[in-house]
Amino acid sequence: MIGAGFMGAAHSQGWRVAPRFFELSATPEMALLVGRDQEKTDSAAEKWGWAETSIDWREAIARDDIDIVDIVTPGDSHAEIAIAALEAGKHVLCEKPLANTPEEARAMADAAARAAARGVYAMVGFTYRRVPAATLARDLVAAGRIGQVRQVRAAYLQDWLADENGPLTWRLQKDRAGSGALGDIGAHAIDLAQYVTGTDIASVSGTLETIVAERPLPVADGAAHGLSAAASAERGVVTVDDLALFTARFGAGPHGSGFLGSFEASRFSTGRKNALRIEVSGSTGAISFDLENLNELQIFDATAPAEEQGFTRVLVTEPVHPYIAAWWPAGHMLGYEHGFSHQARDFVEAVAAGVQPTPSFADGLKVQQVLAAVEASAGADSAWRAV
Amino acid sequence: MIGAGFMGAAHSQGWRVAPRFFELSATPEMALLVGRDQEKTDSAAEKWGWAETSIDWREAIARDDIDIVDIVTPGDSHAEIAIAALEAGKHVLCEKPLANTPEEARAMADAAARAAARGVYAMVGFTYRRVPAATLARDLVAAGRIGQVRQVRAAYLQDWLADENGPLTWRLQKDRAGSGALGDIGAHAIDLAQYVTGTDIASVSGTLETIVAERPLPVADGAAHGLSAAASAERGVVTVDDLALFTARFGAGPHGSGFLGSFEASRFSTGRKNALRIEVSGSTGAISFDLENLNELQIFDATAPAEEQGFTRVLVTEPVHPYIAAWWPAGHMLGYEHGFSHQARDFVEAVAAGVQPTPSFADGLKVQQVLAAVEASAGADSAWRAV
Amino acid sequence: MIGAGFMGAAHSQGWRVAPRFFELSATPEMALLVGRDQEKTDSAAEKWGWAETSIDWREAIARDDIDIVDIVTPGDSHAEIAIAALEAGKHVLCEKPLANTPEEARAMADAAARAAARGVYAMVGFTYRRVPAATLARDLVAAGRIGQVRQVRAAYLQDWLADENGPLTWRLQKDRAGSGALGDIGAHAIDLAQYVTGTDIASVSGTLETIVAERPLPVADGAAHGLSAAASAERGVVTVDDLALFTARFGAGPHGSGFLGSFEASRFSTGRKNALRIEVSGSTGAISFDLENLNELQIFDATAPAEEQGFTRVLVTEPVHPYIAAWWPAGHMLGYEHGFSHQARDFVEAVAAGVQPTPSFADGLKVQQVLAAVEASAGADSAWRAV
Amino acid sequence: MIGAGFMGAAHSQGWRVAPRFFELSATPEMALLVGRDQEKTDSAAEKWGWAETSIDWREAIARDDIDIVDIVTPGDSHAEIAIAALEAGKHVLCEKPLANTPEEARAMADAAARAAARGVYAMVGFTYRRVPAATLARDLVAAGRIGQVRQVRAAYLQDWLADENGPLTWRLQKDRAGSGALGDIGAHAIDLAQYVTGTDIASVSGTLETIVAERPLPVADGAAHGLSAAASAERGVVTVDDLALFTARFGAGPHGSGFLGSFEASRFSTGRKNALRIEVSGSTGAISFDLENLNELQIFDATAPAEEQGFTRVLVTEPVHPYIAAWWPAGHMLGYEHGFSHQARDFVEAVAAGVQPTPSFADGLKVQQVLAAVEASAGADSAWRAV
Repeated sequence: MIGAGFMGAAHSQGWRVAPRFFELSATPEMALLVGRDQEKTDSAAEKWGWAETSIDWREAIARDDIDIVDIVTPGDSHAEIAIAALEAGKHVLCEKPLANTPEEARAMADAAARAAARGVYAMVGFTYRRVPAATLARDLVAAGRIGQVRQVRAAYLQDWLADENGPLTWRLQKDRAGSGALGDIGAHAIDLAQYVTGTDIASVSGTLETIVAERPLPVADGAAHGLSAAASAERGVVTVDDLALFTARFGAGPHGSGFLGSFEASRFSTGRKNALRIEVSGSTGAISFDLENLNELQIFDATAPAEEQGFTRVLVTEPVHPYIAAWWPAGHMLGYEHGFSHQARDFVEAVAAGVQPTPSFADGLKVQQVLAAVEASAGADSAWRAV
Repeated sequence: MIGAGFMGAAHSQGWRVAPRFFELSATPEMALLVGRDQEKTDSAAEKWGWAETSIDWREAIARDDIDIVDIVTPGDSHAEIAIAALEAGKHVLCEKPLANTPEEARAMADAAARAAARGVYAMVGFTYRRVPAATLARDLVAAGRIGQVRQVRAAYLQDWLADENGPLTWRLQKDRAGSGALGDIGAHAIDLAQYVTGTDIASVSGTLETIVAERPLPVADGAAHGLSAAASAERGVVTVDDLALFTARFGAGPHGSGFLGSFEASRFSTGRKNALRIEVSGSTGAISFDLENLNELQIFDATAPAEEQGFTRVLVTEPVHPYIAAWWPAGHMLGYEHGFSHQARDFVEAVAAGVQPTPSFADGLKVQQVLAAVEASAGADSAWRAV
Repeated sequence: MIGAGFMGAAHSQGWRVAPRFFELSATPEMALLVGRDQEKTDSAAEKWGWAETSIDWREAIARDDIDIVDIVTPGDSHAEIAIAALEAGKHVLCEKPLANTPEEARAMADAAARAAARGVYAMVGFTYRRVPAATLARDLVAAGRIGQVRQVRAAYLQDWLADENGPLTWRLQKDRAGSGALGDIGAHAIDLAQYVTGTDIASVSGTLETIVAERPLPVADGAAHGLSAAASAERGVVTVDDLALFTARFGAGPHGSGFLGSFEASRFSTGRKNALRIEVSGSTGAISFDLENLNELQIFDATAPAEEQGFTRVLVTEPVHPYIAAWWPAGHMLGYEHGFSHQARDFVEAVAAGVQPTPSFADGLKVQQVLAAVEASAGADSAWRAV
Repeated sequence: MIGAGFMGAAHSQGWRVAPRFFELSATPEMALLVGRDQEKTDSAAEKWGWAETSIDWREAIARDDIDIVDIVTPGDSHAEIAIAALEAGKHVLCEKPLANTPEEARAMADAAARAAARGVYAMVGFTYRRVPAATLARDLVAAGRIGQVRQVRAAYLQDWLADENGPLTWRLQKDRAGSGALGDIGAHAIDLAQYVTGTDIASVSGTLETIVAERPLPVADGAAHGLSAAASAERGVVTVDDLALFTARFGAGPHGSGFLGSFEASRFSTGRKNALRIEVSGSTGAISFDLENLNELQIFDATAPAEEQGFTRVLVTEPVHPYIAAWWPAGHMLGYEHGFSHQARDFVEAVAAGVQPTPSFADGLKVQQVLAAVEASAGADSAWRAV
């Protein structure tokens, strides 16, 4: 695994736990953790249970005994590492966003396509697809359970910037973070919407906003996830968006074509902590999901008896639900990190079976292209831009 | 109408509004309001729209042009008025509780039975049966939609006594109120449970509690509904229960016999304002209702596809739902007082059709008998007592 | 009252009930109902309790004993009637939308301004402002309870067009309805957002969509509210939008300026029956309202102790809440129609006090101007348009 | 660890994961797994990550290199193993129920007291105390945040017996399971209520019921957790309760004494999958928790401004909340199994610090005594029985 920040802890938990609950065709070994600082990397490896450490990611690629490279570094380094790893014959799991630019993302998708032809596979880590309720939503839409898709509403709402005196962490600086709310959390909403509907976004009209333009500089940006830090008296300029609003028109799909979706990515939704939401309205039903109710899916069945219609709150914790049978008896809740075990399992099983895991780098590229189109539209008075 | 307190306003609204929305076989005229104080009664009559007033309820009974007597006085006067009215050939709508004692209630039920034989009808005002969601719950259970009833959970939770310095209003004095939380709000839970399940309670084991035993005497008990008043420095003794907990065994019923129910009536459920709740668990489904979500019914269908099972939140505001077609387009909420219009409509229609309206005085008597059995059990170390 | 459709029933209920619960400075008499068809108007007048009828609205304006004209006709007749009434010295309550065109709306606002100078007042019927929870939301924002407004999310979601074989009622025809989802229900979202934030919308970027373009012609468009009708085999073209999505930038306001809002008006949100929603995120808190939970307001207080922060579900049914003291004891729910009593009360009191009631015709005009700007933007590739 | 069933998987996950997230004073090693069948035990050890196996629990006690014995066998073997382990100087973590009889439980508590005098500690596994929302509830009550406790409502609702043709697994047989719904899930409700209020139950009045008295015998009781199995044609008798209802009077406590609580344990609450609920009503507030919303706590603050009062839905996922700082950034959900990591952490830290971990065996004994008192009351016509 390359990278030792917050996402490293999550991925480590996935690799560690997946084989304890799922029957895997091959058992992953946590061989090598690569970081930037030897001491910190050693400490993380001990905490998370990696056998060895390095501060040179090329070592991982050079070693013959390593089959999988898991990339959890910031987005600007993804392309170089992933392409090198794929060319060296390593299967690659790369955290989202695939890259910081569409160009890099395209190069990665191309490399992944070439590798796949040789039986070497790449996957991008849109983990929220693997929250059982989200997977169930996709399954129901794919099975035609809600009929033709009529419209989509997707949002990812957080509020950690609501305090205007919160510090200017690296996540608020374009040169380091690449993007703001749009790329960081909006990307999840985009991927989830495309995944659940089975349909890609074709064009967008959007607006990007920086609500608080200046913030105190952090004393030291110690927080690995860039969400918080102590503030100093000096102030700096926020160079990324903190609110993104856009309308999307979807392309041709298996259950409806050309429908509209509204999207929002906000770090200023006071009181909303981690509300990745999607509602898909269809001709015969609807599904509605909110990550703040991680174990629930709301389903509306317009074909039910009229007097009994309403949104059904399904606790997605029964053995019949996706991934659940491997865990606990019915009715026992899962959490955020379980998605990483599901991701590890699905990746290992796909690789072992010699099939392309999803979301592929091509899927990751599509999300980047939507992000780029939103930025283009936002820069053109919100005129529509094709993806 | 005899009585000019809070319930008088609600009943007046029912009589006033029902003919504006429902097609009635006969149009009620609001002829005479009877109170205890001439001035106050005149004022109430003007406010509520009654044509004439009196301070002698016998006048209402003596007048030939009056067909219906609606009794909304405190419980200790119900028996005398209702029996006299029935014997004079007036149809009677009597607010719950039917009476303050089982003996009075029995006399009233007997009088009602004699009157019914002459085509003169009596009904008791358990209005919550006529909240559309509650009526729908009954309809679904009666149709076998949840199969055999396995258990019942019923409660009426309020918190207006949570402040221990709240004054000692008449509702806390046994000689005036007859009963405390048990008779005042528990009676609603009992009636609703018997109504929804279509099954009577056969025996009970219960506990009554007075949580705050002494309270400041009120300066003047001005509040018509006895819920609040200014407090003085002197304190007096609370002589009724403010929390009632009991377990009931139901008798033989159309959808299950001998099942258990848990009941609670509380005026100390901090934060619960008017939570009349009932959940009925059946072999193939369940229904759950909470008056704080007046327009909703939760339905669980155990015969639905396993992966889609959950409680469905039905907005009971569609034309197909009980009473709704008369009101507004789909999706428009009703409120507390609509039950009184439904009650007026059902009473008028039953009387016009010459059939017994429900809940009858016999139904009201059953509730009183359950209350008496709970009191008996509570006085006998919670040993079970037959109703 | 001019007009005898669905809104006529609602307004009648307001006029009838308001004086029974509120102490009014003047008691409204329901003098004259004006419709288009004598027989139907007579029938409606009897049902709703109007003393006399006419089929010529000029009669209402000619009569000296009429002080208030309440207009509930379709939007295309509002301007002529309202202006005539105001010029004749009648106070005017006019149902929304103020008019079908901005030009008519402006003429009405001008007439209202002239009349106000003579002590004759006009108000437009955005009744949802008077749902107690919505009023409370406004009060809290106005009191600075959520600090500076950072963003707004508003939507009005219905699903009565979800069935693509639903008939082509008059509400789907531009020449009769004027507008589709945008003008019919989106107007409510706009007014509510401007009302709650105390800030007007300055510019918009929007998209209008007709999801189902052809529908069966109705056999006869009998349904007064245009929501349903029997369908024939022949099909016609839907000429209004059934989904409107737009982003708005607000102007200068007392608690924040230049913030963004996302808006949605949909008749295809499967399972959503009457979900007028607004969430306002501020620097120190947030409020969230959904008309499907009419008696509730969600409040987030970012200044509360960190471990106790969350959205508080306030049952807006306490005497301390707007309008509630006039109704029932604490914890008793209100319904849709109560807003019309509140409207009648506020209108009568303002007129009696000689002050301008709100929302004024100028407020109604602002909403029309926003609608027009959205249409303009939608016709210009979603480019931003000033209001 | 002694025992290799469903709870073994949960405890293993706790031992495995705790040191990866928490800074522990000592790092647990998963040394030895003891089962009844060598092959199955080997398989479980490999799956869960235990170094060695045995089919003789005495081996664990004999080994000098083992410091902690974790007992997850059925309740009838707890006493013998735990006492032997404590006497051998091993710290003991024992899954609930402490034992199948009060006598055994008392012997265990005595042994634990003797061991504690020597610095050897025992803890019983009421894991739900360590759901962060439950811990927060306790913290708030202990801090006086809800004032004096007025009443308690606790329940544990499941529905896995709702199908009357579900098989007669070992959990429905008294000789193997010891108890039914009362002991299995009611015990959790009792412990949680005593924990959150900080007050023990003093006396009870209860009723036990077996709703479905005969069930098909299972073909083979393969399911480790006894919740499901294939059914045969032959039927057998259910010898445990499947519904327990009781009222409890609490003793003296730090925030109120002598208050009542209502309790329910049901396996027939159709649609309720794992609803461990508790609501505590106090003089100045209330808390409400439901395990089906594992990451939430509802808090009512009766001292808040009157117009803003309501239940606040706190997402217990902020760093300020119990246990959360060790896991993920704010707003990321935890699941069922996290309680086992918290338990492992708390146990290790207490032992390392030489202080008594809680809940102690004495706490476990108290729960057993409540269960015994409920059974005694149920056998005595629900007369009150002291604990």
